[in-house]
Amino acid sequence: MSARKNRNKEIHVKTKKTENYAAGAVKYTGVKTGLSTSLEIIDYSKERYERIDTEDIEMAFKFKGTDHVTWINVNGLNNTREIERLGDHYKLHPLIQEDIVSVNQRPKMDEYNDYLFIVFKMLHYNENNEFVNEHVSLVLGDDYVLTFQEADGDVFDGLRERLENSKGRIRNGGADYLMFAILDAVIDNYFNVIEVMSDKIELLEDQLFGDEVEDDITKDIQDLKKEILKIRRAVFPLREVINRLEKTDTALIEERTNNYIRDLYDHIIQVSESVDIYREMIWGLMDMYMTTISNKMNEVMKVLTIMASIFIPLTFMAGIYGMNFEFIPELKFKYGYFVLWGAMIAVFFGMLFYFKRKKWL
Amino acid sequence: MSARKNRNKEIHVKTKKTENYAAGAVKYTGVKTGLSTSLEIIDYSKERYERIDTEDIEMAFKFKGTDHVTWINVNGLNNTREIERLGDHYKLHPLIQEDIVSVNQRPKMDEYNDYLFIVFKMLHYNENNEFVNEHVSLVLGDDYVLTFQEADGDVFDGLRERLENSKGRIRNGGADYLMFAILDAVIDNYFNVIEVMSDKIELLEDQLFGDEVEDDITKDIQDLKKEILKIRRAVFPLREVINRLEKTDTALIEERTNNYIRDLYDHIIQVSESVDIYREMIWGLMDMYMTTISNKMNEVMKVLTIMASIFIPLTFMAGIYGMNFEFIPELKFKYGYFVLWGAMIAVFFGMLFYFKRKKWL
Amino acid sequence: MSARKNRNKEIHVKTKKTENYAAGAVKYTGVKTGLSTSLEIIDYSKERYERIDTEDIEMAFKFKGTDHVTWINVNGLNNTREIERLGDHYKLHPLIQEDIVSVNQRPKMDEYNDYLFIVFKMLHYNENNEFVNEHVSLVLGDDYVLTFQEADGDVFDGLRERLENSKGRIRNGGADYLMFAILDAVIDNYFNVIEVMSDKIELLEDQLFGDEVEDDITKDIQDLKKEILKIRRAVFPLREVINRLEKTDTALIEERTNNYIRDLYDHIIQVSESVDIYREMIWGLMDMYMTTISNKMNEVMKVLTIMASIFIPLTFMAGIYGMNFEFIPELKFKYGYFVLWGAMIAVFFGMLFYFKRKKWL
Amino acid sequence: MSARKNRNKEIHVKTKKTENYAAGAVKYTGVKTGLSTSLEIIDYSKERYERIDTEDIEMAFKFKGTDHVTWINVNGLNNTREIERLGDHYKLHPLIQEDIVSVNQRPKMDEYNDYLFIVFKMLHYNENNEFVNEHVSLVLGDDYVLTFQEADGDVFDGLRERLENSKGRIRNGGADYLMFAILDAVIDNYFNVIEVMSDKIELLEDQLFGDEVEDDITKDIQDLKKEILKIRRAVFPLREVINRLEKTDTALIEERTNNYIRDLYDHIIQVSESVDIYREMIWGLMDMYMTTISNKMNEVMKVLTIMASIFIPLTFMAGIYGMNFEFIPELKFKYGYFVLWGAMIAVFFGMLFYFKRKKWL
Amino acid sequence: MSARKNRNKEIHVKTKKTENYAAGAVKYTGVKTGLSTSLEIIDYSKERYERIDTEDIEMAFKFKGTDHVTWINVNGLNNTREIERLGDHYKLHPLIQEDIVSVNQRPKMDEYNDYLFIVFKMLHYNENNEFVNEHVSLVLGDDYVLTFQEADGDVFDGLRERLENSKGRIRNGGADYLMFAILDAVIDNYFNVIEVMSDKIELLEDQLFGDEVEDDITKDIQDLKKEILKIRRAVFPLREVINRLEKTDTALIEERTNNYIRDLYDHIIQVSESVDIYREMIWGLMDMYMTTISNKMNEVMKVLTIMASIFIPLTFMAGIYGMNFEFIPELKFKYGYFVLWGAMIAVFFGMLFYFKRKKWL
Repeated sequence: MSARKNRNKEIHVKTKKTENYAAGAVKYTGVKTGLSTSLEIIDYSKERYERIDTEDIEMAFKFKGTDHVTWINVNGLNNTREIERLGDHYKLHPLIQEDIVSVNQRPKMDEYNDYLFIVFKMLHYNENNEFVNEHVSLVLGDDYVLTFQEADGDVFDGLRERLENSKGRIRNGGADYLMFAILDAVIDNYFNVIEVMSDKIELLEDQLFGDEVEDDITKDIQDLKKEILKIRRAVFPLREVINRLEKTDTALIEERTNNYIRDLYDHIIQVSESVDIYREMIWGLMDMYMTTISNKMNEVMKVLTIMASIFIPLTFMAGIYGMNFEFIPELKFKYGYFVLWGAMIAVFFGMLFYFKRKKWL
Repeated sequence: MSARKNRNKEIHVKTKKTENYAAGAVKYTGVKTGLSTSLEIIDYSKERYERIDTEDIEMAFKFKGTDHVTWINVNGLNNTREIERLGDHYKLHPLIQEDIVSVNQRPKMDEYNDYLFIVFKMLHYNENNEFVNEHVSLVLGDDYVLTFQEADGDVFDGLRERLENSKGRIRNGGADYLMFAILDAVIDNYFNVIEVMSDKIELLEDQLFGDEVEDDITKDIQDLKKEILKIRRAVFPLREVINRLEKTDTALIEERTNNYIRDLYDHIIQVSESVDIYREMIWGLMDMYMTTISNKMNEVMKVLTIMASIFIPLTFMAGIYGMNFEFIPELKFKYGYFVLWGAMIAVFFGMLFYFKRKKWL
Repeated sequence: MSARKNRNKEIHVKTKKTENYAAGAVKYTGVKTGLSTSLEIIDYSKERYERIDTEDIEMAFKFKGTDHVTWINVNGLNNTREIERLGDHYKLHPLIQEDIVSVNQRPKMDEYNDYLFIVFKMLHYNENNEFVNEHVSLVLGDDYVLTFQEADGDVFDGLRERLENSKGRIRNGGADYLMFAILDAVIDNYFNVIEVMSDKIELLEDQLFGDEVEDDITKDIQDLKKEILKIRRAVFPLREVINRLEKTDTALIEERTNNYIRDLYDHIIQVSESVDIYREMIWGLMDMYMTTISNKMNEVMKVLTIMASIFIPLTFMAGIYGMNFEFIPELKFKYGYFVLWGAMIAVFFGMLFYFKRKKWL
Repeated sequence: MSARKNRNKEIHVKTKKTENYAAGAVKYTGVKTGLSTSLEIIDYSKERYERIDTEDIEMAFKFKGTDHVTWINVNGLNNTREIERLGDHYKLHPLIQEDIVSVNQRPKMDEYNDYLFIVFKMLHYNENNEFVNEHVSLVLGDDYVLTFQEADGDVFDGLRERLENSKGRIRNGGADYLMFAILDAVIDNYFNVIEVMSDKIELLEDQLFGDEVEDDITKDIQDLKKEILKIRRAVFPLREVINRLEKTDTALIEERTNNYIRDLYDHIIQVSESVDIYREMIWGLMDMYMTTISNKMNEVMKVLTIMASIFIPLTFMAGIYGMNFEFIPELKFKYGYFVLWGAMIAVFFGMLFYFKRKKWL
Repeated sequence: MSARKNRNKEIHVKTKKTENYAAGAVKYTGVKTGLSTSLEIIDYSKERYERIDTEDIEMAFKFKGTDHVTWINVNGLNNTREIERLGDHYKLHPLIQEDIVSVNQRPKMDEYNDYLFIVFKMLHYNENNEFVNEHVSLVLGDDYVLTFQEADGDVFDGLRERLENSKGRIRNGGADYLMFAILDAVIDNYFNVIEVMSDKIELLEDQLFGDEVEDDITKDIQDLKKEILKIRRAVFPLREVINRLEKTDTALIEERTNNYIRDLYDHIIQVSESVDIYREMIWGLMDMYMTTISNKMNEVMKVLTIMASIFIPLTFMAGIYGMNFEFIPELKFKYGYFVLWGAMIAVFFGMLFYFKRKKWL
C-alpha cells in the first residue's frame, strides 16, 4: 500500500488507514505536511469581541464555562497530541477525537450529553483553482463551538467579518446560532462549487456541438463524473445530518434557532437536487458524445462513398479502352475519345445528382 | 463569477447568491431590471368587488382584519425595501421575507401560527413563446392572500374574470378557497406546458422517422432534457406541498375546502406522472437517434460496397487485357473484345443478383 | 390548443382541458361526437331480473332505495346536463360529477358517506382492432351501482349474460358483489390486452432475428413503448385503488365480499408485474435492434473488405504489365502471361484462405 | 385467443384464461393433457409409515382428524371435478379451489381459520433438460398437508426417502414441519436452477471472449433474459410469502418450527439476491456483445484500410507509366522499370511501417 | 452437478449443496481439502494472557463459565464431527451448526437466549495475490467468542498482537468488546480490498486513455464487475447486521460498547457507499470503452477515406491517358505528360487542403 503511487492526492475518498489500529486511537489519516496546528479563538457577546491567533493550545482552555460565546477554530490536524489535549479538556469521547483527525470520515452527527458532534466536508476552489475537499469537524457545546480543519483557508471570511462588525442577529445569538452560521456558510459555498460544475458541463456541451471536439473529451467526462460523485458524497450524508439536527430535541439548540435550521435544510435539499440533475446531465454527455462520434463517422463514410462511387466506374470506363485487343471498333472512331468523355461527364453528374437527392451532399 | 457570460438567463436553477450573506437578509436574487414593484389589490365578498392597481405599498395596509377577502398581488421583486415594509406590516418572519425575493427557492410550504407560506413555480410561455419559469410566493392569512411574482404576466386572468363576474362558489368562499383557486390555475397551466413539451417530442420523432434529420437534433434533445428537468423541479416538490396541505390541520383551511385540495392533489399527481413519462420518452429519443444514425451509416456502406464490389472486379478484367505481354492469345481473337464485354455484363448482373438476394437493393 | 392537429386522437393521456375553468364545473373533456347519452338499467334480486334500455334519464330515478340491486350503466358522456341531473338525484358531490366527464382523470377512489366513487380505465380492442382506452367511473351505493362509460361497447357482456341467466353467486350478492364483478371483468380484460402486447413483442423479435427487418422497426418499438406506458398509467393507479378498497372499512362492502376483493388484488398485482416485464422487454428490443444493425453493418463491411482485398492487389499486378517501359523483361517471356495468371490465381486463393481462416466467409 | 399459435407452451406467464368466467369458478387454466389426476398419500407418525398410490379421490377422505400427519399429494389438475370434491371435503374456500387449478396464479399465502394456503412455483429441469415452471399449491391443516401439482415429476424424492427411512426430526415433527420440509426442498432446488443459469451465462461469456461467436447470440441472450424473468416471478413473491409465514401467529405453526422458517427465509433471500446479480450480468452481456461486434468491425476495417492504402497508391504508380503520352522520358530509361519497382517496394514497406507504428498490425 | 467442471473455484456465490439434505444437518459445503481442523485459544483478562494452539477439540471445553474472556478460533471446517462436538458443548442450535459449515450462507445475525450468532465474509488478498472470500462465523457468549474460519490466514494478526501486548482497552473489555474488535478488523480490511479495486479501475482507465488498449479489456471489465458484485454481497448484508447489532437490547453487549458499534456502523456505511461508487464507475468504463472503440474506428476510416479520396481520382486521370483511342490530342502535346503531372499534384494538394480544413489531418 505504501508502495503505490499516489496519483490523485486530493481524493480522500478511497483511502483509509489500513493498519489494524487500536479502535479509538487518535491517528491522523490525511497527508502529513510540515504545517503545525494553529488556533483562532473568537470570543464574543453582544457587547464585546475578542480575537486571538495562537499556536499555544492552552490558550483555548480558559473559555469554557464563560457567559460569552467562543469559537475555537483549529487549523491543521497533524499534531494529534495537541488535539488530544484540547479534546480531553473539553471532555470529548475518544471516538470523537479519532473522527476529528480521520479525514475520510463521512459526514455524520453524534449526540452526546454535553455536546453535539458534526462532521462535514468543506468544498471549495483554492487560489490555484484546484478543487479542495476538506474534512471539517464541529463540536457544539453550551457556550462554545469548536471547529477542526485540515488546513488554512476556508469559506468563513464573510462570517468572521460579520462577527466582528455586525451588531445584529449574529452577536445576539448563542453558540447554536454560530453553529448555524458556520453550516450556512459551508452549504452556501456548495452552490458555488455546483455552479463551477455547471459551467464545466456547458463548456463540454459547447465543445460537443461545436467543431472543436478534442479526442480526450471522454477523459473530461470521466473526470466530471468523479468530481460530481465526490460532491455527492459530501452533500447527501450532510442532508441527513441537517435533517436530524432539525428533529433533535437537544437542549443545546434553542427553539428560535430551529427556523434557521429548517431553512438550512431547504438549502441542502436544493443542493442535493442540483447534484442529481447535474449527475444525470453528465451521464447524458456520454451518450451525446457517442452520437457525435457516430455522426462524424457517417460524414467520413459519405465522403469515401461519394469519391469511390464516382471515380471507380469512371476508372473502369477508362480501363476498357486501355485494353490491347486487336479489334476494338470504338478505338477507331474519330471522336471516340470525346464521346467517351461525354459519357464520363454524364456518369459524373448522374452520381452527383443521385447523392444530392439522397441528401448526402 | 461575475465575469462569466450569462448564457441562458432564464435558468434560475443553477444560480444562487454566492456572497456570504447574513442569513435572513432580504436580498433579491433574480435579474435586476428597471421594473418597479406594482400592486394589484382585489377585495371582495359575496356582495362587493373592488379592484385597485397601485404602486403605493401603503394602499395594501388597510385590508388586514376586515370581513372581506383580499387578494394582494405584488408584481416585481426588485424593490426589496417595499416588500419588507409589506412583510413587516403583515408580520411575516424574516426568513419568509428572504424566501419571497429568493427566486431560486424550491417549492415548499411553511406553517406559522397566523399564516401559511407557500412557494411554487409558475410555468408558462410568454407572448414571445419563450419558456418562463417564474418564482411565486403565496401567503394565506385569515382573510387575505398575498402573492408575489417576479414580473407582470401570469396565468390568473381567468381567475380574475371569475372573481369579478361570477356570483358562484368563488365569491362565497373564503381566503382558503381563493388560495385553492390560485394553485388550481397554476397546476392547470402545467398541463399546457406539458402539452407543448409533448408536441416538441412528437416533432422530433417525426424528424427522426422522416428524411429531414438535421445534424443538430442532439442539441434539441439535450434542450428538451433540460426543459423537462426544470419542469420536474417545479412539479415534484409542489406535489409534496399539496400533499402536506391536504393533511395539515391548520385552522386557516376550512373543512369543505379540503375536498378541493384533494382534487388538486389528483391533478398534480397526474402532472408529475406525465412528466416522468415524457422524461422517459425524451431519453428514449436519444436511443432512437443512435439507431437512426446507424441505419443511415448502414445505407451509406451498402452503396459503397455495391459500387466497389461491382466495378473493382470489372476494372481488374479490363486491366488484364491492358497488359503489354507479347503473347496474350485472347487479344488476337477476332471477337475477344465482345466476348469480354459479355463476361463483364455477366459479372455485373451476377453481382446485382447477389446483392438483390441479400436484400441490399 | 384547438389549432394544433390532433395526430393521435385516442391518447387522452396528454391532453386536459386547458382553459381556466371553474373548479368543480361539469365539463366533458373527451372528443365531442354526435352520440347521445343512453342508459342501460339492470335491476335484479335473487328472484327477479329486469332490463331497461332507454335514453330518458328519469327512468333511472326510481331505483334508489329499493331492496333490489340496480346497475345503471350510462353510455356517452357528451350530454353533461343529463349526467348532472342523474348525479344530483343520487346526490353526487360536484367534484365527482366533474370527474365522471373528465376523461383524463387518472384511476382513483374517493370515499363519501353514502357511496364509493371509483375511476378506472377500460382497455380493450374494438371491432377495428384499435386499442381503446376508455374512461369509466363507478359509483357504489347501498343498493345500486352506477357506471359511466365514454361510448358503447365494453367488456361486460359475459357479466350481463351471467346476471340474466345464472342463479348463482352473482344474483345472491349485493351491490358490492356487483361492483366486484365489474372490476373483475375489467381487470380480466387487462390480461387480454397484455397478451396482445406480448404477441406484438414476439412478432418484433421474430422480425429482428429473421431476415425481414424493415427500416421502420424503430417506430414500431417506439409505438409499443407508448402503448405499454398507457397501459401502465391505467394499471398502476388502479392497483392502489384495489389495495385501498381491500383495506377500507366502509359499510358498503360486506365482509364476505372482501375475499373476492383480495383475489382481485392478486390479479391486478399480476397484471402490473407483467406490464413491468413487458416494458423491460420492449426496452431490451431497442438494444437488440442496435446489435442487429451492427451485425448487418459488419456483414456489409466484410463483403466490401473481401472484394477489395482480393481485387485491388490483382488489379495492381495487371497494372504493372500494362506499363509502357521500353525494357520490361517479363513481357518478352513466352509464357509470361500464363505465369502471371498463375500468380494471380495463387493470390486469389491465398486471400480466400486467409478470410476463411478469419471466419469471415 | 384459441386461434393463436402457442409458440412457447411452457410460459404460463403471459397467458391467463380470458373468457369472462364467473369469479370463484374452478376451471383449469393450464394445458389440457390426457393425464388423469392421481393421488399419493403418505401417512406417518413417529412409529408408523404408510404410503398409498391411488386414483380414487375418496381414499384421501379418511385421513382428516387423525393423530397422524398425512401428506396428500395430487398430481394433475385436469380433473377439476375430483379436485372440487377433495376441496369440499377439506372445506376449502371456493376461491382457493379456483387458485389451485389456476396455473398462472402468482405465489401467495392466504390465511384462513383452519388452514393456511400457499401457492408457489416449482422450477426444475425435466428428464429432457427442459425448463419446467410448475404451479404447486399447498394447504396446511392441523394434521395434514395437501399439495397439488400440475404433473408427475417433482423435487420431493429426497424428502420421500427421508420420510420413509429416517427416524429423525422429520418423523417427529408435525404437519407444519412437513410443510417446511416441502418448501425447503423447493427452494433448495431453486439453487440448482440458478446454477444452470450461471453455467449458461458463463458459456455465453466464453463464446463472447472466444473466437466462436455465432450470429444468434442475441437470441440466446434474449432467451436468458426471459428465463431469468420467469425465475424472478417465481422467487420474489415467494420471498414475501416466507416472510409473512415467519411473522404470522397462526396456531398451525408451532414455536419450534419458526427457527426453521427463519432459515428458509435466509435461503430465499439468498436466491433472490443471486437472481438479481445474474439478471444484471445478463443485461451486461448485451453491452459486451456490442463491444465485441464493434471490435470485430474495427478489425475488418483495418484489413480493408491496410490493403487499400497499400495497393491504391501502387496501382496509381503503375497507371502513370501505362499512359500513352508520346513523350514520357522515364519510359526510355534503361532501368526505369527496375527503378519504379524499387520505388514501389519502398512505398509498400513505408506503409507497412506506418501501420505497424499505429499498432494496426 | 458433480460432473460439471469447477471453473472458478473461489466463487462460493453460485454454488450451494444441491442434494436434498435433511434440514439442520451439519454438512460442509465448501471445497474439501486435506486440512484438518485446528484450534487457537486465547484466554485473557486484565492481568493474564494465555494462548494455546491445538488440534484437540476438547481443549476448548474447559473455558466456558470462567471469569476470563476466551477467544476460540477454529480454522478449517472440513471436520464437521469435531465442530458438532464443539457446538454441542456450547449448546449451539442445530441450525447454527449447519450455518457454520455452510460456506455460502450470506451474512446475517441470529439472536438466541445465551448467545449471538453472526455470519460474515472476510475479504482479503492472500500471499499469491488472489482474492479470497472466506466464510466466517462468530458466536458471542457471556465470556467467550467463538470464530470459525474456512482456512488458515486471516486479518486478525494486529488484533492478536494487541491482545498479547497491550494493557489498554482491549484487555479491560469483555467478550463484547472482543467481538467489536474482530468485526472492526474485518471491516477495516474491506477498505484495503476496495482500494485494490480502485487501483484496478484506474489501471483500466489509464489503458483506455493511453495507447495500449488490449483487446481483452472487455473481459477485464467483466471480471471487475463480478468482483465488485462479490464484495457487494459481503458488505451489504453485513451493514444490516451491524445496524441490528447497534439496535439490539441483548444483555450480552454492554452499554459502553455501543458507541464502538455505532462507529463500526459508520465504517460499514462508508464501505458500502464506496462499493456503489466503484460499481457505477466500472459500468461507466464499458461506455468509455465503447467510445474509445468508436473513436479508433473513426481514425481508421479517416485514413482509408483520405488514401482512397486522393489516389482514386489520380488513378482515373492516369487511366484516361492509358487509353488506346487513335485520336487523343493531348497525347501528342510535347509537354502533355508534365502538364498532367501538374494537374495531378494540384488535385493531390487540393484534397490534402480539403481534409485539413475538415480537421481530419
